[in-house]
Amino acid sequence: MTKVIAINAGSSSLKFQLFEMPQEEVITKGLIERIGLNDSVFTISVNGEKQKEVTDIPDHEVAVKLLLDKLTSAGIIQSLDEINGVGHRVVHGGEVYSDSVLITDKDIEKFEELSELAPLHNPANITGIKAFQNVLPNVPAVAVFDTAFHQTMPDSSFLYSLPYDYYKDFGIRKYGFHGTSHKYVSQRASEMLGRPLEQLRLISCHLGNGASIAAIEGGRSIDTSMGFTPLAGVTMGTRSGNIDPALIPFIMEKTDQSAEGVLNVLNKQSGMLGVSGFSSDLRDIEVQSAEGNERAKLALDVFSNRIHKYIGSYAARMNGVDAIIFTAGIGENSDVIRAEVLKGLEFMGVYWDPALNKTRGEEAFINYPHSPVKVLVIPTDEEVMIARDVTRLT
Amino acid sequence: MTKVIAINAGSSSLKFQLFEMPQEEVITKGLIERIGLNDSVFTISVNGEKQKEVTDIPDHEVAVKLLLDKLTSAGIIQSLDEINGVGHRVVHGGEVYSDSVLITDKDIEKFEELSELAPLHNPANITGIKAFQNVLPNVPAVAVFDTAFHQTMPDSSFLYSLPYDYYKDFGIRKYGFHGTSHKYVSQRASEMLGRPLEQLRLISCHLGNGASIAAIEGGRSIDTSMGFTPLAGVTMGTRSGNIDPALIPFIMEKTDQSAEGVLNVLNKQSGMLGVSGFSSDLRDIEVQSAEGNERAKLALDVFSNRIHKYIGSYAARMNGVDAIIFTAGIGENSDVIRAEVLKGLEFMGVYWDPALNKTRGEEAFINYPHSPVKVLVIPTDEEVMIARDVTRLT
Repeated sequence: MTKVIAINAGSSSLKFQLFEMPQEEVITKGLIERIGLNDSVFTISVNGEKQKEVTDIPDHEVAVKLLLDKLTSAGIIQSLDEINGVGHRVVHGGEVYSDSVLITDKDIEKFEELSELAPLHNPANITGIKAFQNVLPNVPAVAVFDTAFHQTMPDSSFLYSLPYDYYKDFGIRKYGFHGTSHKYVSQRASEMLGRPLEQLRLISCHLGNGASIAAIEGGRSIDTSMGFTPLAGVTMGTRSGNIDPALIPFIMEKTDQSAEGVLNVLNKQSGMLGVSGFSSDLRDIEVQSAEGNERAKLALDVFSNRIHKYIGSYAARMNGVDAIIFTAGIGENSDVIRAEVLKGLEFMGVYWDPALNKTRGEEAFINYPHSPVKVLVIPTDEEVMIARDVTRLT
Repeated sequence: MTKVIAINAGSSSLKFQLFEMPQEEVITKGLIERIGLNDSVFTISVNGEKQKEVTDIPDHEVAVKLLLDKLTSAGIIQSLDEINGVGHRVVHGGEVYSDSVLITDKDIEKFEELSELAPLHNPANITGIKAFQNVLPNVPAVAVFDTAFHQTMPDSSFLYSLPYDYYKDFGIRKYGFHGTSHKYVSQRASEMLGRPLEQLRLISCHLGNGASIAAIEGGRSIDTSMGFTPLAGVTMGTRSGNIDPALIPFIMEKTDQSAEGVLNVLNKQSGMLGVSGFSSDLRDIEVQSAEGNERAKLALDVFSNRIHKYIGSYAARMNGVDAIIFTAGIGENSDVIRAEVLKGLEFMGVYWDPALNKTRGEEAFINYPHSPVKVLVIPTDEEVMIARDVTRLT
């Protein structure tokens, strides 16, 4: 029996989940927020009860110490020696990492080099890795990348139609994200369907505040909607997804903003927030739409239209599909969006049951039994994927 | 019997085609190039023979006079009075024009306002209109827009996931282009299929140096791949099509260029030219690919991959498709690209015949007889569409 901790470090946060492996039992989980700010907040579940503490946590190393102290003082573990491995989410593994890796100093250097491709995420992830290294220097650490699962894409999928030197010199290509989630749900889909992954053509729709679609053939990602960054692809909560690239100079001129300024608008003020004009939260938008707000209705239409079209294009990519998967906040919970996305796919063998579609937040088939294409709702679990990779690689 | 002239004016060129209507017989056609430069070139076919003259043509008005003089002096027409109408291609009709229009002074003002949306094209088109107005003040003129056919798109198709005010304040939306071509081939498809347009779901692939795909339901465009500008959508000869918008600031920084500079790269040095590294001309690329050039092969793969995926997404948009149409230079002539695009669409009922696919430059069915989805090659004819609209509106 081994205990493994899965870590997702942000610039001012640290999300954790402690597993008993190989049973994959969650012993505890929680979140440390506002690290480096005043009134940091430490939330942890102890014996199934949520405890919250407000205190000043100046940096990630102090956060890690606080967490480990708590694990022992609350009797969750008897000694730090019980922790056999730490798994870290690292957003960008570039073309270097096509699988998770046992972290060495050389790797940390690589992650730093790759920060150029993910300037908002990789530095925070590295801070988390170093904090654990300092506090638990003898415990092996594993990095699990958002991009790794998509490294199987062929060049016809990942290459942009740009000067080829941009790829060679600057690493400009489609990387794709949410890979850990797409991989998890594809494996679960294989189990639920009772068919080997090698024989399946899957379309995975990870629909949360960020959203991406993946075409998964024989267990391998062969295309995905996000691109060089997580801005690309479908409409999201606040992100635009794909737009005509010529719009950037046009918007710069019209609104007197820099390219960075416009990029900020595309990342933070666009998507369903931009279309609806009032919220990036699908739940708000669904409520308003039901009450007759036309812009809310339009936001739903635009969002589901984009996902619907990706499903068609990825079905074409694989000459058909065996199952469509919905996951993440919206995918797991919104029957409204699932219905809009699935409407009008009978031509490719998708027959879904409106009654079954009412399901929320748990694994379910929502297709009619006779449907050639199955439709699955699968709650994602990126943390257990991290824990599994720690177990596999340590 | 009436004679109608169809005009496509560029910044330094004037393309013309003289029709006998309603027979739609082409009496003559030709091209004036290098207007305003030295050694302008005037090419015209007289009695089926191509004549070429090199002379200095300072502006479009002189070009028009030269053309009209030639028409009478060469005996193509007896008198200018025989010309009953002039039809002008106008690239951008914005949201103002959803059909061709008999041009008034008010319209010319509108076209000038719309130049903001098509700064390279509308001013040249207007120059052509004014030149004919001055030389033939009493002959009615009609404007035919590249955008008009796509004005039937629903807002869920044409709206970007950007702040809604960008649409209201700056007209930022998907307009789509090649509308005259998509409309022409959809009408021909209806005739070839012997089925009313109202009952058909068509996917039209206009593949030339510029390329766009349209979803046409009941004769109405409901979605298309080009966007606010003709840069968006699929890979083209030198244009990138869609890319991650976040790449623009990244490329600006990496290559020390302005946003306009990067846009220029996306328009002129990208697409198949960028990927292959040596040509934007598909014929060169096909030759090199056949000889084992890997980058040429990659350019073909990327180009056909993007079109293939659009076909899937537009099939999803219409819950199936009755016919897929290939038109324009590449669409009419390249069996290689058609084969790559069509490969792996059996899941949606597309069964095509490699022998029939060898056809070049003429109307043909290339599907197997039993194929539920028909596949058509149709040479486009934007000029006859212009002539028809002149006849209809004058």
